[in-house]
Amino acid sequence: MENTAQPTPTMPPIVLSPEQLRAHWQAHRGLTRRLIEIYPDEHFFSYTLGGMRPCSALIEEVLNMADLSMPGVRSGEWPAFTADSEGERATTKEQVLARWDQVTEKINAYWPQIPPARFQEVDKAFGLYEGPIYWFLLYLIDNEIHHRGQAYVYLRTLGVEPPAFWDRPQA
Amino acid sequence: MENTAQPTPTMPPIVLSPEQLRAHWQAHRGLTRRLIEIYPDEHFFSYTLGGMRPCSALIEEVLNMADLSMPGVRSGEWPAFTADSEGERATTKEQVLARWDQVTEKINAYWPQIPPARFQEVDKAFGLYEGPIYWFLLYLIDNEIHHRGQAYVYLRTLGVEPPAFWDRPQA
Repeated sequence: MENTAQPTPTMPPIVLSPEQLRAHWQAHRGLTRRLIEIYPDEHFFSYTLGGMRPCSALIEEVLNMADLSMPGVRSGEWPAFTADSEGERATTKEQVLARWDQVTEKINAYWPQIPPARFQEVDKAFGLYEGPIYWFLLYLIDNEIHHRGQAYVYLRTLGVEPPAFWDRPQA
Repeated sequence: MENTAQPTPTMPPIVLSPEQLRAHWQAHRGLTRRLIEIYPDEHFFSYTLGGMRPCSALIEEVLNMADLSMPGVRSGEWPAFTADSEGERATTKEQVLARWDQVTEKINAYWPQIPPARFQEVDKAFGLYEGPIYWFLLYLIDNEIHHRGQAYVYLRTLGVEPPAFWDRPQA
């Protein structure tokens, strides 16, 4: 007997739903938040390895990209992405964490407004990066994982145990 | 006039297709392959920072997880994931790259055999990690990005410029 519950060839298969992608991203953001929390205050804005940027600058990039992207992801309103876009620079970890939480809320507020068909639409993020919206969202997530992995090395060389990579708080 | 091409509430929206996820992963794997290629031979198996594992061990983990997961992802045949699963350890970068290419082919061979509904099925990967298959696949990809980001720091401290993060070769 044929199983009629199987997707037909005309219905594209689901890898994950928009809500699952939001939860996946926010779980990664929860892990990154933990890393910021345990990062020693006296090293957060200054410690570097190999001529790279300090943890604060890596986190600022991740935070700005998420913050500034949301209107574009939802409906194509991309601001210019320049050094000026960044606004006032945080000078304490508390300021960074407060902004982190604001962006967490912003993502959750914008997400349900993203039209379902939008994930497959091709757009030019910030007028620069052309591709489907799902691809751009994965770029944001991957870039966060990439830089957080680098901050793990910074922490290890400072003698601090980073949070477990697999343990992701939900937001 | 109503646009009947819009998804109905009963049709779950598509974030990305299985083929798009495969291409996304393979593009990341192409970038990781580039990193292995430019990593100095004399440091690949030995250089470390902060008491971490050398690049070879990070890459071996990523490679083993992808290799051993494919039958499980496709149809639930999970081998036990132990140190013994790893088989013979590579001792040269050429061996690592050759195995990398074998796993690239393996992923491409298994992928079209994954039933579309499988991505949302909950399974226990290696009898240990329980969750939907999409979640496990994202874990494999994220874990690769995480460790590759760490290898970027190793390279920078060795005075070697890593490949551009955004430039992903297609496989």
